[in-house]
Amino acid sequence: MSDLDLRSINTIRVLSADAIQKAKSGHPGLPLGCAAIGYELFKEHMNHNPKDPAWANRDRFILSGGHGSMLLYSLLHLYGYGNLSIEDLKQFRQFGSLTPGHPEYGHTVGVEATTGPLGAGMGMAVGMAIAQSHMAEVFNKDGYNIIDHYIYVLGGDGCMMEGISSEAFSLAGTLGLDRLIVFYDSNNISIEGSTDLAFTEDVAKRFEAFGFQVIEVADGNDLDLIDKAVAEAKADKERPSLIICKTKIGFGCPKKEGTASAHGEPLGDENLAELKTNLGFNPDEFFHVDEEVYDNFKDIVKKKEAVYDEWQKLFAEYCEKYPDMKKKWDEYHDTDRFKDIFDDEDFFSYEDKPEATRNVSGKLLNKLAAKYENILGGSADLAPSNKTKLSCSDDYSKNNRGGRNFHFGVREIAMTAIGNGMMLYGGLKAYVATFFVFSDYVKPMARLSAIMQIPLTFVFTHDSIGVGEDGPTHEPVEQLAMLRALPGFVVFRPADYTETAVAWAYAISSKNTPTALVLTRQNLPQL
Amino acid sequence: MSDLDLRSINTIRVLSADAIQKAKSGHPGLPLGCAAIGYELFKEHMNHNPKDPAWANRDRFILSGGHGSMLLYSLLHLYGYGNLSIEDLKQFRQFGSLTPGHPEYGHTVGVEATTGPLGAGMGMAVGMAIAQSHMAEVFNKDGYNIIDHYIYVLGGDGCMMEGISSEAFSLAGTLGLDRLIVFYDSNNISIEGSTDLAFTEDVAKRFEAFGFQVIEVADGNDLDLIDKAVAEAKADKERPSLIICKTKIGFGCPKKEGTASAHGEPLGDENLAELKTNLGFNPDEFFHVDEEVYDNFKDIVKKKEAVYDEWQKLFAEYCEKYPDMKKKWDEYHDTDRFKDIFDDEDFFSYEDKPEATRNVSGKLLNKLAAKYENILGGSADLAPSNKTKLSCSDDYSKNNRGGRNFHFGVREIAMTAIGNGMMLYGGLKAYVATFFVFSDYVKPMARLSAIMQIPLTFVFTHDSIGVGEDGPTHEPVEQLAMLRALPGFVVFRPADYTETAVAWAYAISSKNTPTALVLTRQNLPQL
Repeated sequence: MSDLDLRSINTIRVLSADAIQKAKSGHPGLPLGCAAIGYELFKEHMNHNPKDPAWANRDRFILSGGHGSMLLYSLLHLYGYGNLSIEDLKQFRQFGSLTPGHPEYGHTVGVEATTGPLGAGMGMAVGMAIAQSHMAEVFNKDGYNIIDHYIYVLGGDGCMMEGISSEAFSLAGTLGLDRLIVFYDSNNISIEGSTDLAFTEDVAKRFEAFGFQVIEVADGNDLDLIDKAVAEAKADKERPSLIICKTKIGFGCPKKEGTASAHGEPLGDENLAELKTNLGFNPDEFFHVDEEVYDNFKDIVKKKEAVYDEWQKLFAEYCEKYPDMKKKWDEYHDTDRFKDIFDDEDFFSYEDKPEATRNVSGKLLNKLAAKYENILGGSADLAPSNKTKLSCSDDYSKNNRGGRNFHFGVREIAMTAIGNGMMLYGGLKAYVATFFVFSDYVKPMARLSAIMQIPLTFVFTHDSIGVGEDGPTHEPVEQLAMLRALPGFVVFRPADYTETAVAWAYAISSKNTPTALVLTRQNLPQL
Repeated sequence: MSDLDLRSINTIRVLSADAIQKAKSGHPGLPLGCAAIGYELFKEHMNHNPKDPAWANRDRFILSGGHGSMLLYSLLHLYGYGNLSIEDLKQFRQFGSLTPGHPEYGHTVGVEATTGPLGAGMGMAVGMAIAQSHMAEVFNKDGYNIIDHYIYVLGGDGCMMEGISSEAFSLAGTLGLDRLIVFYDSNNISIEGSTDLAFTEDVAKRFEAFGFQVIEVADGNDLDLIDKAVAEAKADKERPSLIICKTKIGFGCPKKEGTASAHGEPLGDENLAELKTNLGFNPDEFFHVDEEVYDNFKDIVKKKEAVYDEWQKLFAEYCEKYPDMKKKWDEYHDTDRFKDIFDDEDFFSYEDKPEATRNVSGKLLNKLAAKYENILGGSADLAPSNKTKLSCSDDYSKNNRGGRNFHFGVREIAMTAIGNGMMLYGGLKAYVATFFVFSDYVKPMARLSAIMQIPLTFVFTHDSIGVGEDGPTHEPVEQLAMLRALPGFVVFRPADYTETAVAWAYAISSKNTPTALVLTRQNLPQL
C-alpha cells in the first residue's frame, strides 16, 4: 500500500468521524473498519464514472449496512459524485441535507439503493445481479458485451443474521449469479456486544451450502488481500462469491476499536482527537482533506474515464451494427411507452361472464408481457394460484438468463427486495406475487419500494376471508388497512375486468410509486 | 415393521386422503409422505398422554408445515385426543369444525401451535426448546427431573426456504438447544414444481453451519431408520438435531407420488380409489379404521400411561420434598397473580420530571421482573435502546439456562415466533422488543400471537418520526395503523409514566391478547 493510499483511506475515516461527531449521532464503527475495503473497491475494481452516475454498464455498489452511510458519503465526496461537497458532509444527518442518516436512493447522487433495514441491501443486490444477467443475455452480442459488470454489496453481522439475506442468498446460489460479490464486514460485534451472544454460526459454511464461493480476507485493511479476493471472485464464472473480511469495528480509534460502543455513537471529542493523532492527522483540523488526496481521486477518475469512453465507443458501434437492438435498448429504457396501454382496445376488451379478478389479472399480465418484452417477474411459489405465469416466455434459470418467469421459492421478503433490485437496475419492469395475507412478509420491503419511489408491481391474490377453508392464518383481514396506510404505495382492489385492467395499466405506467393489485379467488360479475 | 404398524400408518394415509377428498380441498402430499414419521414419533418416542394434553412434561410436537394438518388430525383421532371423532374428520375444513384447514391452537385439543405461514412452527419450536431448558434449570432438582422432554417439529422445503427458520435455527445452534429435534420432510417438490427451480442449497451443510447435528434418513417410511435417527438426536447433549427424511410427496398414490399436484389438491375420486387399493384398503369404504388399528393405538396409550403415572408420582414426591419449589411452580403457572400489580403502589409511583416512555418502561419492566420471576425476554439486538435489560438477572445462554435476558440477535421475525413459543410452552411470561418501525418484520408472527390469543408482550420504542436523524427507513409512520387494524392485538401508546404503568399492568395480566407498548425516544412531561 502506498503512503497516498493509506492517507486516502485514513481521510475517509477522519471525514466520517468528523461528520458523525458534528451531527452528534451516527455510526462510526463501519466507516472506520471498512474504509480500506471501500477505497480499494472504488479505486481498483469498480468501473464507474462520477460524471455519468446512471451509466448502464457501471459496477454497482450497495452499502447494505446503511447505518455506515458516512463511508459512502466520504467516497462520493472524494470522487466528486453530484458535487457532494465538504459542506454537505458537515450537514450529515440534518433535515433536508444530501447526507441523511441512511443512504437514500434518488436523493444523493451515487446512492444505488436506500438501505438501513438490515439485510435489505443484500436482497436488492441479488435482484440487481439477476437483472444484470438478464440484460446481458438480451442485449449482448458477439464482441459486444454491452452489459458486462459486477454487483458489489457490503454488510456486517446484522445483515447476515436477518432472514432476508438467507432467503436471497439461497436463491442466488441456486441461480449461480456469478456477477454478485458480497463483502461481509466480520468484526464480531453487534449492538448488544460480542456476536458470541447470539451469532456463533459458521457463516462461510452457510454460504458454501448456498452454493457460493467463499473467500477469506484475514485483514480488511490489507489492500493486496482484498485485490486477490476480488480477482478470485471474478474468476469464478459459476457461482456468486462471499468475501469474508475480518475487520476491527472503529479501527484507528484506540479506545473504541473492537467495542460495541464504536457501532452507533459518535466517538466523542477526545476519542476523535486521538483517532486523528493516531492516523497522523492534526486533531485541531476538522473535515480536512489534503490536496494530494483530492488529486489522487482525480487521477483515479481520469483512469476510469478511459474505460468509460471505450464502452461508449463500443456501444455506438453496437447501435450502428444492430439497429434493432438499439431500438430495443431504447424501448427497454423508455418508461413513457407503457402509457400506450390505456389506448389498447384489446387490453380492455373482455368476455361478459363472471370471473375471478386473479384470472383476469393473469390474462391482462400476459397481454402486457406480450406487448412489452421487459416485463418479467414471478411468485413466491404460488404462481399457479396467483396466475402470474407468462405464457410468452420460459423460466429464468442459471441456464436460461433470458427467461422472464421467476421462481422465487417460498421467500416473500427476499422476493420483494429482489424485485426492488431489478427495478433499481434499470431497463426492466418487474412484478412479484403471493397470497394477500402474506403481504405481511412483504411489507418491510414494500415500504422500501415506496420510500425509493420505484414502481414495482405487487400481485396479491386471495383477497378476503373468502379464501375460506384455509382458515384464519390464510384469511387477510387487516392487510388492506396496513397497505393503504403506507405512504406512497398505491393499492387497487378491482371489482371486475375493467377495473383490473385500469389497475394494471396504472401499475405498469407508474413511474414513481409501487402499485399493489389485490385480487379475488372467487368469480365476480362484470359490472 | 409389523403388519399392524404398516396398517396403522396406512390408516393415517387413507383417513387423510378421505377427509381431503370429502372437503374438496386440502393438502394430501404431506400426510401421505410423512405418515410413518408421525406414527413412529407418537408411538415410540414421544411421552404424551391424550387424557392430559396439558401435561407439563409432555414432549411437544409441532407441525410446521401446517397445510399437512390431516396428518395431525388423523393421529389425534386415533389417539383419542379430545375425543376427536371420525365425524370431526368428516368435517375437515368446514366452518366451525374441530378440523380446520390449518391446525389451530386452543381450538383442537392436542394442537400445540397454530401453523400455516411456513417457517412459523420452526420459530415457535425454538421458543419452546428455550422455555424447556429454562424451566428445567429453574425447577429440576437432583433426582427430580421434573422437566425432561423434547421438542419435535416437522416441516418441508417451504419451511426451510423461509428466512424465519434460518434466523431461528442460527440462534438455536448458538444456544445449543439439544432438546430440539427438527424433522425435515425432504421430498424435492414445492408448489411450482421441483425444488431444483429455486432451492438447490445443501440444507444439511447449512444446519451444520448453524451448529446442528445433522442426521439423514434415506427412507422416511423406514421405522428402524427413524428410530435410529431419533436415538442419535437424543444422544447429543450439546446440539439441536436436524433429521433429514427423504420422503415421497403423495406416497402410496401411484399417479400422484412425487408430483407437485400431490401437494395442495385432493387426489380425486379415481386416485383415491387407487391409493386404497394400492395400500390394501377397500376403495368403496370411506373413513374406515380397522378395530385392530384402534386397539393398537389404545395399547400404545396404555404403555404411555405408565410413564405418565411415574412422572406424577415423582412430581408428588418433589412437591413434598421441596415445598418452596412447589410454591414457585404454582406461581409460575398462575396467570391470575399478575393482577396484583394494579394494587402495587411502588409500581405506580414516579418522579415528576420529564422522561421518555422507553426509559419509564425500562423501570417498570424491572419492577415487574423483580416481583414476578417468570418474566423474561429481550430484544433483537437493541436492548440498550429499547431499555429492556433486566438488572435482576443475567443473560440466558448455553451455559446459563437460568438467565432471563435474551439476546435474540438482529432477527425480529424469529424473535417473535420464539416469544410465541415461550408463551405457548406454559409457565413463562415473555416479552420481545425492537424499534417500532421494525414492527414491520414482527407483524407476521404478531398476527399469530393474536390468532392464538397468547399474551406475548411487545416493546416497541422510537415511536415516531421523532427518531429524527435516522431518516425515513427508521421513522414509523403507518405502523400504528397497521397494528391497530390487527384483530385481537392490543396497542398502547402511553403519554407518561402512569399511562405506561397501566399499559404494562394490562400487558402482564392479559390472558388472551398480545399487547404492544409503543414508546417514545424523547422525554415527555408527566401529565
